[in-house]
Amino acid sequence: MGFKAILKTIVEDSCGGLGGVIMGYDGIAIDEYLHEGGGVDVQMLAVEYASVLKEIKRTIGVLKTGELEEVSIISEQCSVIVRGISDDFFVALVMGAEGNFGKGRYLLKRAAPGLREALQ
Amino acid sequence: MGFKAILKTIVEDSCGGLGGVIMGYDGIAIDEYLHEGGGVDVQMLAVEYASVLKEIKRTIGVLKTGELEEVSIISEQCSVIVRGISDDFFVALVMGAEGNFGKGRYLLKRAAPGLREALQ
Repeated sequence: MGFKAILKTIVEDSCGGLGGVIMGYDGIAIDEYLHEGGGVDVQMLAVEYASVLKEIKRTIGVLKTGELEEVSIISEQCSVIVRGISDDFFVALVMGAEGNFGKGRYLLKRAAPGLREALQ
Repeated sequence: MGFKAILKTIVEDSCGGLGGVIMGYDGIAIDEYLHEGGGVDVQMLAVEYASVLKEIKRTIGVLKTGELEEVSIISEQCSVIVRGISDDFFVALVMGAEGNFGKGRYLLKRAAPGLREALQ
């Protein structure tokens, strides 16, 4: 299964997913999938968060608490769930405020090993 | 109930909580509670994350997706769950890898309105 197909499965199965993206911590995307009528600029959002994630990775390095596994950022109108898939890349799922956050987390976690393998 | 008592309830009831802190985005703590034998420098950890949280708040402002509600950062050895309680302050719970993440989130969410009121 290609990157876009994996992202599509995550977004469409997550009940409230607006879009998904596989991106480098440098803000350059590998692939993305947008839910029809989602109305969110997922790539812009991911680019904005990429620098934050880079900072989080650096902080975790300073604190020596092991590898970054997951970051979630919930604001009033949307949630962003991010899972690290390698030293250089992450996968992010953007959900609406009414989305199933738990299911989104589960789907990202389940997809991560496959994405990690595909990126090598 | 004072700040430390609220933090104690959150940390001790969360099944795996190592410590809790109420802090400004400028990295200055109001109060903290540490679980005995937790072995984590919660204040140092919160100070390191405060600048990340400031950056996340800024990003959310740029993206116009409403107020920051919750941030969670999970690394191999510990999880940090943060809930915004006002424009200037947040409450953070640090948990071990085996902690009950869902219960931690719930306890922080439940405590937030009381903390918000106490800070005014």
